[in-house]
Amino acid sequence: MLYVFDLVGVAVFAVSGALVAARKGMDLFGGMVLAVVTAIGGGTIRDLLLDAPVFWIGDPTYVIVAGGVALITEIFGPRILPRGKPLLFADACGLALFTVMGAAKANATGTPAITAVVMGVLTGVAGGAIRDVLAGDIPLVLRKEIYATASIFGATVYILMRHLELGAQLAAWTGLFATLLLRLAAIRWHLQLPRFLGGPE
Amino acid sequence: MLYVFDLVGVAVFAVSGALVAARKGMDLFGGMVLAVVTAIGGGTIRDLLLDAPVFWIGDPTYVIVAGGVALITEIFGPRILPRGKPLLFADACGLALFTVMGAAKANATGTPAITAVVMGVLTGVAGGAIRDVLAGDIPLVLRKEIYATASIFGATVYILMRHLELGAQLAAWTGLFATLLLRLAAIRWHLQLPRFLGGPE
Amino acid sequence: MLYVFDLVGVAVFAVSGALVAARKGMDLFGGMVLAVVTAIGGGTIRDLLLDAPVFWIGDPTYVIVAGGVALITEIFGPRILPRGKPLLFADACGLALFTVMGAAKANATGTPAITAVVMGVLTGVAGGAIRDVLAGDIPLVLRKEIYATASIFGATVYILMRHLELGAQLAAWTGLFATLLLRLAAIRWHLQLPRFLGGPE
Repeated sequence: MLYVFDLVGVAVFAVSGALVAARKGMDLFGGMVLAVVTAIGGGTIRDLLLDAPVFWIGDPTYVIVAGGVALITEIFGPRILPRGKPLLFADACGLALFTVMGAAKANATGTPAITAVVMGVLTGVAGGAIRDVLAGDIPLVLRKEIYATASIFGATVYILMRHLELGAQLAAWTGLFATLLLRLAAIRWHLQLPRFLGGPE
Repeated sequence: MLYVFDLVGVAVFAVSGALVAARKGMDLFGGMVLAVVTAIGGGTIRDLLLDAPVFWIGDPTYVIVAGGVALITEIFGPRILPRGKPLLFADACGLALFTVMGAAKANATGTPAITAVVMGVLTGVAGGAIRDVLAGDIPLVLRKEIYATASIFGATVYILMRHLELGAQLAAWTGLFATLLLRLAAIRWHLQLPRFLGGPE
Repeated sequence: MLYVFDLVGVAVFAVSGALVAARKGMDLFGGMVLAVVTAIGGGTIRDLLLDAPVFWIGDPTYVIVAGGVALITEIFGPRILPRGKPLLFADACGLALFTVMGAAKANATGTPAITAVVMGVLTGVAGGAIRDVLAGDIPLVLRKEIYATASIFGATVYILMRHLELGAQLAAWTGLFATLLLRLAAIRWHLQLPRFLGGPE
């Protein structure tokens, strides 16, 4: 099941990268590179940190899926998709999938619980952050709507459930939907946490 | 002692990340993510390059310290700290600590002296550079005041003293203060090196 | 021969980093750090992904060459070089050299062909992307002229020739010139691929 999670996460982040590339007027291959880097970025950082073999090196499926999805998005996306929302939706799905995958892979190697949560958050936010920094945008994680919070919440739910031995599959789906629903609710209703008590400097 | 250096470096970089997050109006958890990434970024790159286990994976103390310090800074910092200077001061301390830690860890694995200096500089500047790039700021390392120069100077002093077998502790403290004092002097008196002879293009 | 390719790639990317630093008005040591990071960035990411020893850690030659070339460029470059073009030319050479080196190193470890092409492209574009992101510029890879396309083309040519067993040296030189000539032609005649069918959002 983790394989499917990784593959779907790669696909939705590839969509998000291709949409950003289209908005910036990049050409087909430039957009494909941005989409692939976005898609494999989070999982790559996760595997490097865990000293595991990088997941897409031995299995070209990920890159083929990311590149193919990017091409389809680049060609058809701007015509058929409404503005703005698809990017946020694809990014939210990728955030949720990679948050759980990062926490799961770290947990499987026996890291402390807090480390596993951090790994989940880093894996979840890294792909989108790389995409936005390369594209010269303000990373979504810095926006005022709930974003990092959703990832921290989902990863914590997942790790708590695993430590309570509630079953790997149930924990994964619960963590996934916890992240996704919180993030989608934040997008829909512009939910914000209270800012710093002191306000901006 | 190296453990303490790492821990203090993590704490001061977490303060700097939390202050940037406050200035950008990020929420509590978004600011915590930025602070933790800033705090563990430099040491993470160092450990990946040296193919050593990443220092915070097995020991949750670092992440707990970074997250706790970030939270306290976010809640109380903007109220009690004067503007501008605390960020530069925390960043200078982190630069000095991680410069020495990077050079020390590289030296301990028997790398050539020049490699150890480069590792010190990369470790010192990486955390702050990640923070500034994610926050959409111009990295401090690009500012005109002495910054990279302080790190190169401190790392070189440390490695020279180690090769002269002057004692690990003495070398560490000397390298630390060499970096810190040069950087603080640059902040205080706006010290600059001469620019390129040819000037900007 | 691969050693020479790496060394020349390091040197030309160091030139490009130093030219960007000069344009930004950085001081000598700040410019040297930017140049060295640009020069070793692509190969470092390649080696981390392949779980190989990072190429410059054990052999200080690369860092010495990068630092020395940077210093010479910083001192003499802005005086004797015409504006704009040298940066694009040095970057194009680095792109071509590191594209082939990335694909070659991946291929030598027995990765699937598609992975080797992706490694070539990542290695080729990473150094310049790090340079541009740190300097606050729009990465060249995002510009509208052919850039990523040249790298994908060169890496594909190289890997195809290796799989057809046409000889390692011939494949390397052909891949190198395929990348370089396509990129230089794009710079000279402002070649662009067609944009997305749907145009920008």
